[in-house]
Amino acid sequence: MSQTAAQVNHKVQAFLDDLKGKTIDHVFFVACGGSSAIMYPSKYVFDREAKAISSDLYSSNEFIQRNPVQLGENTLVILCSHSGNTPETVKAAGFARKKGALTIAMTFEPDSPLAKEAEYVAVYDWGENAQAINTNYGVLYQIVFGALHVLENHLAFEQAIDGLNKLQAVYDKALKQEADHAKAFAKAHEKEDIIYTMASGANYGVAYSYSICILMEMQWIHSHAIHAGEYFHGPFEIIDESVPFIILLGLDETRPLEERALSFSKRYGKKLTVLDAETYDFSGIDDSVKGYLAPLVLNRVLRSYADELAEARNHPLSQRRYMWKVEY
Amino acid sequence: MSQTAAQVNHKVQAFLDDLKGKTIDHVFFVACGGSSAIMYPSKYVFDREAKAISSDLYSSNEFIQRNPVQLGENTLVILCSHSGNTPETVKAAGFARKKGALTIAMTFEPDSPLAKEAEYVAVYDWGENAQAINTNYGVLYQIVFGALHVLENHLAFEQAIDGLNKLQAVYDKALKQEADHAKAFAKAHEKEDIIYTMASGANYGVAYSYSICILMEMQWIHSHAIHAGEYFHGPFEIIDESVPFIILLGLDETRPLEERALSFSKRYGKKLTVLDAETYDFSGIDDSVKGYLAPLVLNRVLRSYADELAEARNHPLSQRRYMWKVEY
Repeated sequence: MSQTAAQVNHKVQAFLDDLKGKTIDHVFFVACGGSSAIMYPSKYVFDREAKAISSDLYSSNEFIQRNPVQLGENTLVILCSHSGNTPETVKAAGFARKKGALTIAMTFEPDSPLAKEAEYVAVYDWGENAQAINTNYGVLYQIVFGALHVLENHLAFEQAIDGLNKLQAVYDKALKQEADHAKAFAKAHEKEDIIYTMASGANYGVAYSYSICILMEMQWIHSHAIHAGEYFHGPFEIIDESVPFIILLGLDETRPLEERALSFSKRYGKKLTVLDAETYDFSGIDDSVKGYLAPLVLNRVLRSYADELAEARNHPLSQRRYMWKVEY
Repeated sequence: MSQTAAQVNHKVQAFLDDLKGKTIDHVFFVACGGSSAIMYPSKYVFDREAKAISSDLYSSNEFIQRNPVQLGENTLVILCSHSGNTPETVKAAGFARKKGALTIAMTFEPDSPLAKEAEYVAVYDWGENAQAINTNYGVLYQIVFGALHVLENHLAFEQAIDGLNKLQAVYDKALKQEADHAKAFAKAHEKEDIIYTMASGANYGVAYSYSICILMEMQWIHSHAIHAGEYFHGPFEIIDESVPFIILLGLDETRPLEERALSFSKRYGKKLTVLDAETYDFSGIDDSVKGYLAPLVLNRVLRSYADELAEARNHPLSQRRYMWKVEY
């Protein structure tokens, strides 16, 4: 275990040390947009693994206004904002602390308002040279699997940390393997007005993030992240040979939902882009955590699809018309 | 209280009688598509009111595959399928019962597979002559407020039942008031390829339902239900004077999120359709439940917008290309 501990972010470790002996019966995942989307797989982990801790995931302002009655002294609130400056999330941290909840915030900016507002702060790495285990997704899983280990003596902590440690190699190999597909995707979709995404389970947040942050926000392309199970109860009526879909296949227990959605889409659609985590090399990573780590790989690969799409469309991912530019 | 009890569906009342003395610490809302969407306001009610009962809402197959570890003997699972024939939901009922959970199903068809599979069954009314309190939304709230009353001695049961009883009058008046707006909406949108919907809190499920069931499924119009709080963290970059939005304003605590989203949209968008529950006449309904009942009214009014849209586009709401027609 000490070898595992050595790989954990030292701020996360300090939080986990303090967590020992505390009673937590509810966890809230609270953030906005892309920072919220990275938390969906963690909610999946909690649902499957946490025997006595319930959890909810809310956009920061929804969390504050909804004001869940169970938010209190036995609650852990995990927050995230890249800049640490998202007003709703900063406010949510203060709101949760006033209710007596334990708060831990993740951010890229150690001196940001969010870092000051939350009780515990874990700073993550970001950018070209960041290792998977130290990015937002990686640090969040350290918190999540660490908390399950401390609070419920959950056994997959070592496997999770070991898996996160080996994840960068999976990213690198998958990116190489998908490089041509990413370029082909960009070329094929450069004139599209709408692109749907679809996934389920641990992977749904990746589809959501790609839909609202990459396509809508950064490319001004219409989008909607369809849940692969809900697809057959409404949304599938939209597909025909002209409508593009990005379909994700993960490695978690809901994969049959994604496979069913893909199989139907192949029969009636034509513009399908499939990212299948089964084609990536997870060797050395324990089976018990592969399903939880697959969305992180899918997300990293999809980012390369975004880079290529931006290039092909001559629409930089940094371009905005409202965000940070006008009042809102 | 006996006057209240007299207004409750007798199958719901039998369920509530049996519920007395039972220990329930988690509720799962389980259904697909439109039947799932009606449950979003109930999750909102539970979050705000249930002191010791956590809850989750999942599409039926996601529920089964996710296989939440907390599903067990102290769990209540509330299911719904209009036909009672939705395979995923029928399977979910059996799955939950095998885990020892208490199950209650809502359906329009008393002899359906779902009605046979669940332990308790409440049949709801539907169609032109159905009274609000006896429809799917109405019966679900009877179960929800009834369960809170039995399990936590929650005080709003009488107010909720009384409110449901007066709801048909609210519908009728709102429909009259909105009749011309519905026609104008249909005329203005008959040629649109994409229409976004937006809401938050108790009303989000109404936006979701309109997006996936009415627009995508029944009109083959692209859509996406945007959460009003998430709007500013990605999706709002999509709006301009050419992009239509339906924006809902409810009466619950998240209304400021919806108002903020509307205010921004008014500055940069032009094709806005606003349904504001504050313009409807809720007189006689207790303040403590108005926010919970508003989505039911918004949903009923939106249905008239769907009827007019289908008429204007000469595309009947009953038309399908895949659903019930091909294998999936």
